[in-house]
Amino acid sequence: MNTTIKNRVGDQTTSFSTDSRRGFLRGMFVSVAAASVLAPIKLKADDAAILEEAEWGVKLGYPTNKHPYGIPSPYEHNNVRRVTELLSSGDMYASVAMSPLHEQEGIITPNGLFFNRSHGGTAVVDPDKYRLMIHGLVEKPLVLTLAQLKRYPSESRIHFIECPANGSTGWRGPQFNNLQFMKGMMSSAEWTGVKLSVVLADLGLKPKAKWMLAEGSDNSEMGRTIPIEKVLDDAMLVWGQNGEALRPDQGYPVRLLVPGWEGNLNVKWLKRLEFGEEPWHAKEETSKYTMLQPSGKGIRFFWPMEVNSIITSPCPEKPWTDLKKGDMVEIQGLAWSGQGTIKAVDLSLDGGKNWQEISLKGLILPKSWTRFSYMMKWEGKPLLLSSRAIDDAGNVQPTINQEVAKVGVESVYHRNSICTWEVKANGEVNNVHVRG
Amino acid sequence: MNTTIKNRVGDQTTSFSTDSRRGFLRGMFVSVAAASVLAPIKLKADDAAILEEAEWGVKLGYPTNKHPYGIPSPYEHNNVRRVTELLSSGDMYASVAMSPLHEQEGIITPNGLFFNRSHGGTAVVDPDKYRLMIHGLVEKPLVLTLAQLKRYPSESRIHFIECPANGSTGWRGPQFNNLQFMKGMMSSAEWTGVKLSVVLADLGLKPKAKWMLAEGSDNSEMGRTIPIEKVLDDAMLVWGQNGEALRPDQGYPVRLLVPGWEGNLNVKWLKRLEFGEEPWHAKEETSKYTMLQPSGKGIRFFWPMEVNSIITSPCPEKPWTDLKKGDMVEIQGLAWSGQGTIKAVDLSLDGGKNWQEISLKGLILPKSWTRFSYMMKWEGKPLLLSSRAIDDAGNVQPTINQEVAKVGVESVYHRNSICTWEVKANGEVNNVHVRG
Repeated sequence: MNTTIKNRVGDQTTSFSTDSRRGFLRGMFVSVAAASVLAPIKLKADDAAILEEAEWGVKLGYPTNKHPYGIPSPYEHNNVRRVTELLSSGDMYASVAMSPLHEQEGIITPNGLFFNRSHGGTAVVDPDKYRLMIHGLVEKPLVLTLAQLKRYPSESRIHFIECPANGSTGWRGPQFNNLQFMKGMMSSAEWTGVKLSVVLADLGLKPKAKWMLAEGSDNSEMGRTIPIEKVLDDAMLVWGQNGEALRPDQGYPVRLLVPGWEGNLNVKWLKRLEFGEEPWHAKEETSKYTMLQPSGKGIRFFWPMEVNSIITSPCPEKPWTDLKKGDMVEIQGLAWSGQGTIKAVDLSLDGGKNWQEISLKGLILPKSWTRFSYMMKWEGKPLLLSSRAIDDAGNVQPTINQEVAKVGVESVYHRNSICTWEVKANGEVNNVHVRG
Repeated sequence: MNTTIKNRVGDQTTSFSTDSRRGFLRGMFVSVAAASVLAPIKLKADDAAILEEAEWGVKLGYPTNKHPYGIPSPYEHNNVRRVTELLSSGDMYASVAMSPLHEQEGIITPNGLFFNRSHGGTAVVDPDKYRLMIHGLVEKPLVLTLAQLKRYPSESRIHFIECPANGSTGWRGPQFNNLQFMKGMMSSAEWTGVKLSVVLADLGLKPKAKWMLAEGSDNSEMGRTIPIEKVLDDAMLVWGQNGEALRPDQGYPVRLLVPGWEGNLNVKWLKRLEFGEEPWHAKEETSKYTMLQPSGKGIRFFWPMEVNSIITSPCPEKPWTDLKKGDMVEIQGLAWSGQGTIKAVDLSLDGGKNWQEISLKGLILPKSWTRFSYMMKWEGKPLLLSSRAIDDAGNVQPTINQEVAKVGVESVYHRNSICTWEVKANGEVNNVHVRG
């Protein structure tokens, strides 16, 4: 078993030297300080919003204790998770609610907008009745209450979770003309819990233990098998998400966190961890979550999410239709890799013919969303905007043709090929396939 | 004017060399891997939670699309912000809703639990009617719509915001026997917006501009004056909080962010920025938010929040009453400084007689909450738990006596002296004053 996974299109890694490109490309960055970002703004003499006192300036707001647990502005009512019948059981118990990435700022997803995939609906677990069994090849098998689990020393780490089906609607062509349904099966949070290596040092892992089974307590009895190297490397039992208890749709009170690996491995409403010598071949890792290859064979136990990126602004939901020729505008987006830390992001304005390395911004953390940014002047001419991410393990995001040549189009999962937005002269943005 | 503010009890900084202490104290850390964290757990043979299938294991959960904007578990209904009549107008329009720090994990506060101080209730601003005026000593004064403001290149940064009145209930003695009302006037988030230095490079700041007035659009017309050095250093106009739009109670759609400085400077529902040669002496910086000294004089324009810390576990709301003698337990808490980055935290088990440096954990960022942690064996003996933070500017958290000698007890604001929890033999925890 090899848990050090290379990018499937690894031959790309020899095509350039990142370091020499950095120097060459530095001169191409547009300096924000040097360019006027805003075009001259003409004030309308009759702009009521300027001339008249707003209602909220003359009347009291609502009392400070009205919402003990706060809620978003009513004007943000469209910023919600959305499901599609295409990817749901009719009753929406087995479904995926996708995160509105076009409204996502920074690298933390608010808990209310964290994508939610469940196989049998959202379980509402009573924390007083919650028990976690840890057994199999450990010296001290036991059953823990939630309070006992929380006695272990905690850690907090920022990681994304991505469903391996993220982007799956695009294998044969653009199926949805928006960002939310194309890439919204992922989100990011600051997770709090205990590393499994700490728990296992306490319980005593037997040398023969090579695999861990994680099983959920919900009706779908989600089960996944994970190699012991990954368990001991960075897997965690988490109870906190962005400063509060996990939400029910994220596995309250306890889920497994397997940083960078398939979302379904991060088992929710965790009931049981068993340690053994062989993998379990659980239902969800045989009937589902396998990769069908062109040869007709399916690959099992293909866990880490590949290096990937997507431009979040502009996107079909955030077009440039309000921009005028000559306006400065920021192109930005998210890059991530389940196999390391983002090292660089390249941008193409012409669908992948020419690339330039652009800036990363904000925190750059392993197995975490990383923001990229490029300031440009919009000349009102059509563009084909593509981003390409590179991680510190040397993985490079492949073109569609490279990915298809390698894995065909029958695999629902692990699509990480380069995405392209067509920007029309009128500023409209469409999801297109540029095969590269 | 001097914007490089030293800790008020700066003479403490000479009392030790941090580097030499680190080596000396390293041996005192309890190794988690070496000690058994959990006492032997005896399973009850009749534990129904183990023997019987839980209801959520045999029935479907709720549909995935039930809450397009997610909500917490119903079992977490007590984890909310709370107000007290002591610090509110009777109608709760001018009040402060305090954050439940005893339930806080990590260094991100979920938006629903972010503390909320307002002077005239929570304004609900229509983003389409929102305008921001920037005028005074700038070359290109203008009025921006929200969309125009968002065209500037954005940044995301993690910072706490703390009301200068945080801890004010403790000047003369412990007024509340809990953490939430003692230190809950602060929270932390990942903020997204544009640096004011970028906006001002675009608009052209005139050399004579030495001060900025920030004014809110709500009925209280909150106004504060900020020196230009701080404005150009790291102040931001922010529209995003933890990945989504600001909540109304945090100033939707735009607030000022002044990292590390008094919470009230982070003006919400921002309407106007004016640049001038002299400070404005606005209502809230003359009638309020001044520091009354023992001499009878009040200090104005005292902006940065001091180095500070608090133990969040245990605390009066999270006692050790369920622990047994010999159990391992984690002491943890939050340290922060508006004047730099946390460099070290010391822990005392005996109310400040003896101190030892303990571990910091997780991300350590400037002007940001930093977690500290210490694993210990609970012997069932009374303790006086105190934490003391040191920042990289050399500021050391003072004792109560040191603070009172310097500033008296008449100042409502900027209390940062060392806090102490009394842990009783039965595990109960109380807020006590140990003057040091």
